[in-house]
Amino acid sequence: MKKPEKKYAVIFKAEIKELDGEYSETLAVLRAMAVDHYGCLDIASTTEGDNEITISYWKSLEDIKRWRADVKHKRAQQLGRDKWYKSYRVQVVEVIRDYSHE
Amino acid sequence: MKKPEKKYAVIFKAEIKELDGEYSETLAVLRAMAVDHYGCLDIASTTEGDNEITISYWKSLEDIKRWRADVKHKRAQQLGRDKWYKSYRVQVVEVIRDYSHE
Repeated sequence: MKKPEKKYAVIFKAEIKELDGEYSETLAVLRAMAVDHYGCLDIASTTEGDNEITISYWKSLEDIKRWRADVKHKRAQQLGRDKWYKSYRVQVVEVIRDYSHE
Repeated sequence: MKKPEKKYAVIFKAEIKELDGEYSETLAVLRAMAVDHYGCLDIASTTEGDNEITISYWKSLEDIKRWRADVKHKRAQQLGRDKWYKSYRVQVVEVIRDYSHE
């Protein structure tokens, strides 16, 4: 039997201060980079009022670590702290069970 | 040294079909029950258009299991499948790292 593959996620929850044009551009670039160059499997995001929840999925903690160290991503994190977000919380998690209903 | 406490979360992602008055009532009752009677630590939820992401936090898989088996919760799950949601996905995860920026 094949060993089931592990899956990880990064839960990002933020309270928005003010989003600008640079935010939208940066977001689009970063999401494409995460998927195309860092092995990000999937991204889900919803914003309601001032609250954003974004979840990205990854196949290894190593990929998450590489992604966190990316220079453009680091710059965006800094802009997030300086301009876009009042506060945020990041949780790295391991997926234990996964089921869906269509 | 005290062993760090484990923390778990349930990620619920759904595509909404149609929400009604019963949904709002059920949601309020269920959230209160989860926190008051099943040890749920915290709940974060955002809905944008037809997409909902809700994350609940728990101190044990046992609590999650008890909560999933609650009769009122099971009835709500059935209503979710029948009326409120086109599709949904549930992921039980273990929190590995947790950091925040204020």
